[in-house]
Amino acid sequence: MPRQSDARANLIAVAATLFQRQGYHGTGLTQILEESGAPKGSFYHHFPEGKEQLAEAAVRQAGAEVAVLVQKSFSQAATFEEGARSMAKAIAKWFKASDYAAGCPITSVLLETAPQSEALRLACKDVFQSWADIVAAQARKHGKDDASDALGAAIVLGLEGAWILSRATRTTKPFEIAADMAVALASRPVRTTK
Amino acid sequence: MPRQSDARANLIAVAATLFQRQGYHGTGLTQILEESGAPKGSFYHHFPEGKEQLAEAAVRQAGAEVAVLVQKSFSQAATFEEGARSMAKAIAKWFKASDYAAGCPITSVLLETAPQSEALRLACKDVFQSWADIVAAQARKHGKDDASDALGAAIVLGLEGAWILSRATRTTKPFEIAADMAVALASRPVRTTK
Repeated sequence: MPRQSDARANLIAVAATLFQRQGYHGTGLTQILEESGAPKGSFYHHFPEGKEQLAEAAVRQAGAEVAVLVQKSFSQAATFEEGARSMAKAIAKWFKASDYAAGCPITSVLLETAPQSEALRLACKDVFQSWADIVAAQARKHGKDDASDALGAAIVLGLEGAWILSRATRTTKPFEIAADMAVALASRPVRTTK
Repeated sequence: MPRQSDARANLIAVAATLFQRQGYHGTGLTQILEESGAPKGSFYHHFPEGKEQLAEAAVRQAGAEVAVLVQKSFSQAATFEEGARSMAKAIAKWFKASDYAAGCPITSVLLETAPQSEALRLACKDVFQSWADIVAAQARKHGKDDASDALGAAIVLGLEGAWILSRATRTTKPFEIAADMAVALASRPVRTTK
């Protein structure tokens, strides 16, 4: 019998994958329990508030995994631009390997539950901001102090758009376009007035 | 009693709104019938293949409405850059007016049904491409022949990313960032080698 913490982690991992592939409403508690092998009692022990509470944990956990990938791509790059391209390539590869099924682990939950669930909206907002903060810190490291927050937001925005268009087209091209957009923004001369 | 074509159009409009706000799986046929006032027999007369067939019509109809807005924003602008900013502003205004609830009418269906439903994936792909084609034609009109397809794809990608981040943050700022990214890409010197 797995330890309690394992059971909780397993429930979160199973839920994150199912939400990512078939959406929040498309995933019933029955399927989560079946695929995780967790008894109902164990589920309600860990998540007394039910599916919404599990979804919040799944959003935060999946967000932390993407954050590791973003951090790794940028920290190994010699320039901000190289980091943006490296990150886009890594996520494109991951998405293609899932046969274009495992998109952004955050978005499917967000689109189905905001604005009805404020807890889930805030969890998604926090995750997006955590990614943007990592990118902004890297932008500052590469001397782009003035534009660091804008670049952080732009990278996350491009990534989200790419995940959607890549799902529709079943190509990795949108990730290249997102990287091109971010690089163009990063390479823009700094505006001294306005 | 409304004419048959009215009943069909009404079913499509109601379904598009519900999918947009609460997702595909979150919207049951019962709710669609209740809110449209259509009897079950009328629904199956117009959509013999059921909810998926209705969703395909809703995606294409909603896509055509956004296409009108994109076309209008760009065709009234003096430059491509002005068109991009005008479009971002118009969609941001529309989204804010819905209290950040009525996001991209295409994406919620796409994320919940692709890759399981190839018909719905292709409908979404067609719609995104139709928007990109409008933008690409405008880019060519403004002399950006070499980058027109890339700009078309970039505008759609930025729009999709902005809809998601705007939903999470409940601000219209992501639409400004998307416009900044597209403008930076459009203003980039043309690369003569590679």
